[in-house]
Amino acid sequence: MTTVGILGGGQLARMLALSGAPLGLRFLVLDSAQDACAGQFAPMVVGDYTDQAALDQFASNIDVATFDFENVPAESAHWLAERRPVFPSPRALAVAQDRLAEKTLFLDLGIPVPDFAAIGTRESLDAALIKIGTPCILKTRRLGYDGKGQFRIKTPADADAAWTALGPQADKVGLILEGFVAFERELSVVAVRGRDGEFRAWPITENWHVDGVLSASLAPARVDDTLSATAIGYASKLAEALDYVGVFALELFCRDGVLLANELAPRVHNSGHWTIEGSETSQFQNHLRAVLGLPLGDTRVLGHACMLNWIGAMPDANAVLSEAGGHWHDYGKQPREGRKVGHATLRADSTRELADALQRVGDSLDRREQVAPVIARLG
Amino acid sequence: MTTVGILGGGQLARMLALSGAPLGLRFLVLDSAQDACAGQFAPMVVGDYTDQAALDQFASNIDVATFDFENVPAESAHWLAERRPVFPSPRALAVAQDRLAEKTLFLDLGIPVPDFAAIGTRESLDAALIKIGTPCILKTRRLGYDGKGQFRIKTPADADAAWTALGPQADKVGLILEGFVAFERELSVVAVRGRDGEFRAWPITENWHVDGVLSASLAPARVDDTLSATAIGYASKLAEALDYVGVFALELFCRDGVLLANELAPRVHNSGHWTIEGSETSQFQNHLRAVLGLPLGDTRVLGHACMLNWIGAMPDANAVLSEAGGHWHDYGKQPREGRKVGHATLRADSTRELADALQRVGDSLDRREQVAPVIARLG
Ligand SMILES: Nc1ncnc2c1ncn2[C@@H]1O[C@H](COP(=O)(O)OP(=O)(O)O)[C@@H](O)[C@H]1O
Ligand SMILES: Nc1ncnc2c1ncn2[C@@H]1O[C@H](COP(=O)(O)OP(=O)(O)O)[C@@H](O)[C@H]1O
Ligand SMILES: [Mg+2]
Ligand SMILES: [Mg+2]
Repeated sequence: MTTVGILGGGQLARMLALSGAPLGLRFLVLDSAQDACAGQFAPMVVGDYTDQAALDQFASNIDVATFDFENVPAESAHWLAERRPVFPSPRALAVAQDRLAEKTLFLDLGIPVPDFAAIGTRESLDAALIKIGTPCILKTRRLGYDGKGQFRIKTPADADAAWTALGPQADKVGLILEGFVAFERELSVVAVRGRDGEFRAWPITENWHVDGVLSASLAPARVDDTLSATAIGYASKLAEALDYVGVFALELFCRDGVLLANELAPRVHNSGHWTIEGSETSQFQNHLRAVLGLPLGDTRVLGHACMLNWIGAMPDANAVLSEAGGHWHDYGKQPREGRKVGHATLRADSTRELADALQRVGDSLDRREQVAPVIARLG
Repeated sequence: MTTVGILGGGQLARMLALSGAPLGLRFLVLDSAQDACAGQFAPMVVGDYTDQAALDQFASNIDVATFDFENVPAESAHWLAERRPVFPSPRALAVAQDRLAEKTLFLDLGIPVPDFAAIGTRESLDAALIKIGTPCILKTRRLGYDGKGQFRIKTPADADAAWTALGPQADKVGLILEGFVAFERELSVVAVRGRDGEFRAWPITENWHVDGVLSASLAPARVDDTLSATAIGYASKLAEALDYVGVFALELFCRDGVLLANELAPRVHNSGHWTIEGSETSQFQNHLRAVLGLPLGDTRVLGHACMLNWIGAMPDANAVLSEAGGHWHDYGKQPREGRKVGHATLRADSTRELADALQRVGDSLDRREQVAPVIARLG
């Protein structure tokens, strides 16, 4: 009997546990929130990632550890890695935790990125603004997620406001200025690498964000084979360079048909949720297979899938459940503004059927704006 | 937040909980075994189905109840149904618990059955043997499962042995004598009926038993449309007659192209496990949707699927996990002779690919006899 420890007890941990159960695995979740939603289906240790007693109890009851949350403090990850196998490795985690280290690695590997500059002081922000130009985005290097820790600078006159918003965090989490990319689309590669180095990617996903938070994903993305091969090639290079084990997502912008890498998420990823019903093997099961050294599952798609995120509160389930290919995912969380509380996946055998289903769901839930860009893409 | 209570904590309860989690449900399992495998993913009340304190605790913490195990005592089911909605109803359960009531209902509905006779005494056995002839099977009316509580009578000379084996149980659980059906195939209809009466069936499944225990299932069964429509028609009639709510399986023999009903399983069924990966909606999720009054999910197949049962102990997982369409289900149970400890499902887009995958798995696990009849059927 193998017990997998998961640092973080959100929906990713929850879906890992649900899809790992058939492998005969047990799970133990570490989270500071008593009511973390993974705790509804897996035993928990309640404690902070830096709470030594909690870490001790966690480590001594697991065989291998992985992450639901990538911003676990480096020291905790290292401490754990000295006691139990940890995948992905603390080194891979460290790179992905820091937008500067991440982008530097992308460049080293020949993966194009938006213009960027490390920002330490107000003066360096001014200098970078001249070099990069506007519009651009000031971001925290660390601890940002779902568009948090970002300030959009439209004109040089916004510099003061940007510094007021994020300057105070410069010392603690670091800052980075990035050129704003007027992309045609956002894409992600969700991929997995095994302990033995085997690499597999799901077909490219197209993603739509609203206020920096993922709103909808479409898979397979309607991109040509060359673009797809380039994107997957980048993901493969990255995984190799980091000796990465497990599932990860590489977020990309596509501008004028050219790919620019945005960030690396060192874990199962929201843009891969469609794989639960839309692929032979889900990202969750493949992550666990990788972590445990089991053969990786097939990443082929089953038709066409669109994932819709539910933010803040769950809508009525019936519209989705009434669709032939409608699948519901309620994370069992309390509603709260801006919180990811669930998602739906619509699966269909043709793009036409998928577009029709999206239209009906959008109408019925009065969420036409959420489905509109996906329907437009499906043409 | 809705909590579904499940009477019985075996693999069926476990898979119900795993596939009901995405609906935002919570579960509570009642089982007398502390280590019941559903308890690894759902909270439990440990106690017997007749233990009043356990039943009380169970009832007061759930919103609706259903079954992993159909042989819950009628009084317990009734007691519960007075306090909470229970699906399927105690009445439907009562019919399915008794092979005589079941077969009588089949006949009432015009569903053909093998010859049978109720047996109360040694004299009635002798009389029935003359009427039905040999070979035949003496079975307990109640509490039989996985071929238990059955004695095969090849010639009239076996009557003594049959009576020695089962006669002592005649008063407690009742006995029934059935003509032995030299069937060409065994089929099952796995179907679901909603609270509103909506009925849906998955495509017919063909099943192979070894020593009375399910060994392999193939779906969709290779049967013609007329046979399929007849089988599904029987299931629909039955569900209607019982005002059934939830998933059930109707087991059928096919002899000389004619269908004879064997038994009704008033719950998710081993011959429907392939629906987890092989259908748009699994039997587990649809059972819960039915029980909760939610829209039923689509029962279409995704290609072709074969389920292989693992009895006694789990084989090595790698052979299955290495197959593109290979899916593993380890129930987290201790190995024990005759015990269902897990299953695998192989899914493929064509019958040819499925046959090839079965061949490789059979060879690699040295289980050629288990896969042979399925491969033969796939031609
Ligand atoms: N440089 C950029 N140019 C254009 N849009 C951006 C840029 N950086 C971020 N965004 C938008 O904001 C979203 C969230 O930003 P991201 O850097 O991925 O942070 P997070 O860690 O919060 O996902 C992106 O998916 C994209 O839609
Ligand atoms: N009357 C019969 N004729 C031929 N085979 C039978 C008969 N009854 C049972 N069997 C065989 O034994 C298996 C198990 O019997 P069944 O009546 O379904 O009991 P259980 O409740 O244990 O599943 C059947 O699936 C079938 O293979
Ligand atoms: Mg991002
Ligand atoms: Mg049976």
